[in-house]
Amino acid sequence: MIYDTIIVGKGPAGITAAIYLKRYGHHPLVIAKDGGALQRVKEIENYYGIPSITGPELLEQGIHQAKALDIPMIEEEVLDISYEGVYTLHTNKNQYQAQTIILACGTSRNLFYKARGLDGISYCATCDGFFYRKKKVALIGNGSYMAHELSVLHHIIKDIMVFTDGLPLEVEIPEHIPVILDKIDHVHGETRITSIEAGGIQHEVDGCFVAIGNASGFTLAKHLGIALDNKNCIIVDENFMTNLEGLFSCGDSIGGLLQISKAVGEGAKCATAVSNYLKKHNF
Amino acid sequence: MIYDTIIVGKGPAGITAAIYLKRYGHHPLVIAKDGGALQRVKEIENYYGIPSITGPELLEQGIHQAKALDIPMIEEEVLDISYEGVYTLHTNKNQYQAQTIILACGTSRNLFYKARGLDGISYCATCDGFFYRKKKVALIGNGSYMAHELSVLHHIIKDIMVFTDGLPLEVEIPEHIPVILDKIDHVHGETRITSIEAGGIQHEVDGCFVAIGNASGFTLAKHLGIALDNKNCIIVDENFMTNLEGLFSCGDSIGGLLQISKAVGEGAKCATAVSNYLKKHNF
Repeated sequence: MIYDTIIVGKGPAGITAAIYLKRYGHHPLVIAKDGGALQRVKEIENYYGIPSITGPELLEQGIHQAKALDIPMIEEEVLDISYEGVYTLHTNKNQYQAQTIILACGTSRNLFYKARGLDGISYCATCDGFFYRKKKVALIGNGSYMAHELSVLHHIIKDIMVFTDGLPLEVEIPEHIPVILDKIDHVHGETRITSIEAGGIQHEVDGCFVAIGNASGFTLAKHLGIALDNKNCIIVDENFMTNLEGLFSCGDSIGGLLQISKAVGEGAKCATAVSNYLKKHNF
Repeated sequence: MIYDTIIVGKGPAGITAAIYLKRYGHHPLVIAKDGGALQRVKEIENYYGIPSITGPELLEQGIHQAKALDIPMIEEEVLDISYEGVYTLHTNKNQYQAQTIILACGTSRNLFYKARGLDGISYCATCDGFFYRKKKVALIGNGSYMAHELSVLHHIIKDIMVFTDGLPLEVEIPEHIPVILDKIDHVHGETRITSIEAGGIQHEVDGCFVAIGNASGFTLAKHLGIALDNKNCIIVDENFMTNLEGLFSCGDSIGGLLQISKAVGEGAKCATAVSNYLKKHNF
């Protein structure tokens, strides 16, 4: 089955887009592992119409609204997106296909700030793995998304170390891959990364792949070759379409005010643009 | 007293802007006669976070939120806005001054569709009254806004007839002004208005001033010389500022999707731009 639209993200932007698309007569699918940043918000008092609510409560309300409209929602982690005539979303469990995609999966809170400004830091194994094929690299992360990146690098690079940066390893990885469970103290290098220090030991590396947390809009964008601005936000046109035909984005992923109000407004506008796009292409 | 900002309108765009400005540390004043189009909406089911609510209930919630933040709200009808170093808002009762204005008073639902396409139709007595100074004109309307326009025309034009288009006259006007209480059947003319037919009688006119209902964003914009697009929506830049320095607009007034989601998103963004503007100019 090929969906009209798959919306990645179930926060205010994603759910609003889903509600509008459904009401426009389309059949959207929502895929998201969790509610993202909103999940950690204790109190919201600046959203029109709701005097006071917690982030988790508001997320729950939104999901309830979408379910009341029979919008299918799948709780899986999107690890990668590819395109060959149609878009294919690869999750930790399945693959899903769609004519159009809306990335509404928040801002990139999983950038590796400890290595800010250094060359040799990559956020996409598929894009950059090849450059390190005879080199020694670090892969930073501890969950499904890290395992996905490892499966890509594994075929290209022989010398890989995984750094969980103090977090427990949540996935199984091949036994011969060394895993450093200590918190990362420093990332060394003048202009380019030369070593990672963790638990008092310095590990020399030629490069470093970052796969912390979930794949964000930013990391999915990197994998697809979507244009990003200098703040790592996805660049969209006036119809919320990225530089890739049929791939849209709205909400925190595209930067600007990181606010529920803005996300909701953009969700509605983006859905309208996607609806026009679907009709124009007879999908 | 000169306010930082006066927001005209207490719908989703205006109240969201007020909430954001207050939380940014400014002192906004909200002036509106009523809640506009939302007041007549029976059921809203596509606004994120609220499964189902009526228009009046949502308006009430928003006003309650603003009042909880001690945002002053004045229930008067804005009839005109002028600028001489600061902005002055003329209501049916008072005058208020501000460094900046946000027009969030909805779309122009008071256009006079019966005369669509004909020349000789004006929406601003101050702008166009002079052109008709020895002519015979009709003034269409029945409330304070009509009376305001009449007070302007009255000094310039001797031969004025008021048409209420079937509505009761709600204001006192000079006795010598003829008032036609019948519904308007036709507006005649080839390219330019020549007569208005009401209650079976054809009244010859050289021009017609429209002042139906409240002064909308559109009519206030006409008075101020704000640039409008071909759909009579206010044109704003990326910071929601019109072609007049310090005068902003958001929500239905600027066109696009006439949706609460969009109005709320724009209210937040517009308030952020106004806050930056106020800080930049040390207001």
